[in-house]
Amino acid sequence: MDIRVQKTFEALFALEDVRQTLRDSVPDGIGLHEGDRFHEQMSRVKAIINDLEAGTGSPEVTRIAGNMEIRSREEEYINIQPIQAAGRLTPEARKALIAYGDGYSACDNCRKPFRLDKISKPPIADFHTELAAFLNMDTARVVPGARRGFQAVASSLVGPGDSVIVSGLAHYTEFLAVEEAGGIVKEVPVSAGNKITPDAVAEKIETVIIETGKLPKLVMIDHFDYQFANEHDVRGISKVAHQYDIPLLYNGAYTVGVMPVDGKKMGADFVVGSGHKSMASPAPSGVLATTDEWADVVFRTTQMTGDVTKRKFGIKEVEMLGCTLMGSTLMGMMASFPVVKERTLHWDEEVKKSNFFMERLLSIQGSRVMSEYPRKHTLSKVDTTGSFDVVAQSHKRRGFFLSDELSKRGIAGEFAGATRMWKLNTYGLSWEKMRYLADSFQEIAEKYELQIV
Amino acid sequence: MDIRVQKTFEALFALEDVRQTLRDSVPDGIGLHEGDRFHEQMSRVKAIINDLEAGTGSPEVTRIAGNMEIRSREEEYINIQPIQAAGRLTPEARKALIAYGDGYSACDNCRKPFRLDKISKPPIADFHTELAAFLNMDTARVVPGARRGFQAVASSLVGPGDSVIVSGLAHYTEFLAVEEAGGIVKEVPVSAGNKITPDAVAEKIETVIIETGKLPKLVMIDHFDYQFANEHDVRGISKVAHQYDIPLLYNGAYTVGVMPVDGKKMGADFVVGSGHKSMASPAPSGVLATTDEWADVVFRTTQMTGDVTKRKFGIKEVEMLGCTLMGSTLMGMMASFPVVKERTLHWDEEVKKSNFFMERLLSIQGSRVMSEYPRKHTLSKVDTTGSFDVVAQSHKRRGFFLSDELSKRGIAGEFAGATRMWKLNTYGLSWEKMRYLADSFQEIAEKYELQIV
Repeated sequence: MDIRVQKTFEALFALEDVRQTLRDSVPDGIGLHEGDRFHEQMSRVKAIINDLEAGTGSPEVTRIAGNMEIRSREEEYINIQPIQAAGRLTPEARKALIAYGDGYSACDNCRKPFRLDKISKPPIADFHTELAAFLNMDTARVVPGARRGFQAVASSLVGPGDSVIVSGLAHYTEFLAVEEAGGIVKEVPVSAGNKITPDAVAEKIETVIIETGKLPKLVMIDHFDYQFANEHDVRGISKVAHQYDIPLLYNGAYTVGVMPVDGKKMGADFVVGSGHKSMASPAPSGVLATTDEWADVVFRTTQMTGDVTKRKFGIKEVEMLGCTLMGSTLMGMMASFPVVKERTLHWDEEVKKSNFFMERLLSIQGSRVMSEYPRKHTLSKVDTTGSFDVVAQSHKRRGFFLSDELSKRGIAGEFAGATRMWKLNTYGLSWEKMRYLADSFQEIAEKYELQIV
Repeated sequence: MDIRVQKTFEALFALEDVRQTLRDSVPDGIGLHEGDRFHEQMSRVKAIINDLEAGTGSPEVTRIAGNMEIRSREEEYINIQPIQAAGRLTPEARKALIAYGDGYSACDNCRKPFRLDKISKPPIADFHTELAAFLNMDTARVVPGARRGFQAVASSLVGPGDSVIVSGLAHYTEFLAVEEAGGIVKEVPVSAGNKITPDAVAEKIETVIIETGKLPKLVMIDHFDYQFANEHDVRGISKVAHQYDIPLLYNGAYTVGVMPVDGKKMGADFVVGSGHKSMASPAPSGVLATTDEWADVVFRTTQMTGDVTKRKFGIKEVEMLGCTLMGSTLMGMMASFPVVKERTLHWDEEVKKSNFFMERLLSIQGSRVMSEYPRKHTLSKVDTTGSFDVVAQSHKRRGFFLSDELSKRGIAGEFAGATRMWKLNTYGLSWEKMRYLADSFQEIAEKYELQIV
């Protein structure tokens, strides 16, 4: 590990040890014993800080809790991993994790009616209001991942044997959410160019009606799918769904938090987003937003009464199981939110960088882009069977030669060993990094005598 | 805020800013622009470190992301909040949050078959094995909170209209999990001393059979309940349940992570624990463990096939919705685990401290303990209607006088304003802190001329 990165972690960790001394002391001040410990720890902090500034010293801490390596992927590499790019934390989110790491840290000021989204200090209630507004929906809740949003909706709307329309490119978590509710997924066939069209959705709904004699209960559509990150016409699809009076779930795992999302304009009855995928938030986090029409269904409160004690827990929401993210995960999400809101306004620039990279990659002869092109997203699927895979065929490291070359240049997140079809995500990289990235691929191509056209 | 605490946070935050500079730089080293920024930031770090060591300076950072206060409850106070005590993080967990905060940070080395509990680096697979062994169960999974464990079991076992036996002291999340599955809770009446007895469970099962003509599908019992933290005879109850061939869910939200739990000895078919409540872990986290007999039911893999694409996601578990805690939450849990395992061996000492405090509180005339006594747990419900509430009656701050007095002495976590029946938890406090805590209550009593007997 780069010594400056190493020493940054050591300094942070050493300060956590200092912090523990403060925690261990009784409130009337640092006692004599803790005082010694404090000063020893401070000496250590200062020595590390000096090394950090000078770029000197050698690693002293290499494991957390004895067996976890220090993760320095984001400090040492340009990370192009398909699902990690938009989930890396902002500095403010990292600070929130430091300050709010402890278990139920969000709950210090939980007062009647005792529900997470009603807490005003820290400003969790306001955050919920802003989150709904951000998506142009009426109500929002935080959930432990987008999948838990799918689950809440499926569990509320779908009964045993009911059909749910999903995309032929749907993520597996949509399958599971429907299966968990006892329903059956019905896939919309993918049209030319790997797109899901409103017409194909209409046709599928008709087929399901004929086959089952019943209307599907829900249409779930990914605005951008996880396989190609192609854009699908959610607005057109929602019109079709609504013609049949079927509600539409907008899967924004790859949109909410990176580009502007207007739920109502999209005709969404439900908007689901992922915190750890696209909102610069810790896992597991996500958002489920809905309209006034559906809020009472998906956020219905408990109707159960204890048969003996007559207890009721009236304000608790069944699908949320009461409270969802009671500590660091939510605090991280909230701390990133101002930056996340702002960054969605600069999506065009991210798309421009994505296309800049793609042009440069495509100039390496034999390379293809499998996603729609020009790109409308920063996640892309490429096919380098005709370029890097040709090299891999005769290289003793096979496909790993590309990983080796990328790693040497400080690039990580490609699927190790893959040189045929693979995905990458350039979200959030500066122009300087984009140029470095594109240059690196071309350098590797040149090194192995691939043609640049 | 105490200036040393303040400066510790400022130093940690300033180092996160340094870290961001390292992140922003291209991999070939810190460029000129970043170099300037780096040195400016390092100067700032050093100035803060000097203030921290000397205990000088004034607060420079008071908010995260502009609107979140820095949480210093654990640094500045003895925290007796009923649900927070055993969820405060270990230093190693805090370091893990620092290193693994980013979104999908656990997934760098996710390889076939692509499931969280199979990842070997960081050692997530080993952690799952150890977690099952720790509970003496066959298989374990991490879940986003104990409630999500209840949900997975209820959803697997309980159908519409089915009955589930719960305690008359059951937590509301058990109600919700059953309701979400379409089932109905049937409460076991509380016996003398606020205990749930095997006989009462047997009687309730018989009643349900008569009333519904069907066996209950599940018995969920809290080893220690959340209201009094009284111990309930889970082992005896499991024998009763098994006589009817009904599986037993052991709710260990207040036991797993603080005391030894032997699931099989308890006769548990399912053990559920809470990370943020009792395993020194960030929220939302928890564990669901089961036996070989039930693993295929509750951890069943998806059977769904895409009707058009024929896609299958065979290894993904329906109730887990695939992967659960893909980043910091799990990493924090894992980092605390060695300490958590060790600390359960010292539960007797924790109980001793709990009783030490209770004796001192009870010596304030008019105070009562509502939980079973002597205490077998660190969470207790007390009744100070005859002591502190008498003061509150004529105090201009009413019940808040007690909060004020406690706060002045660096004690937090009592329910603000409550002077009649309230709960506290002394888990994890050193003997020094315990004495300080007990002395503080007695000092307050003396100040207001309550009798010490």
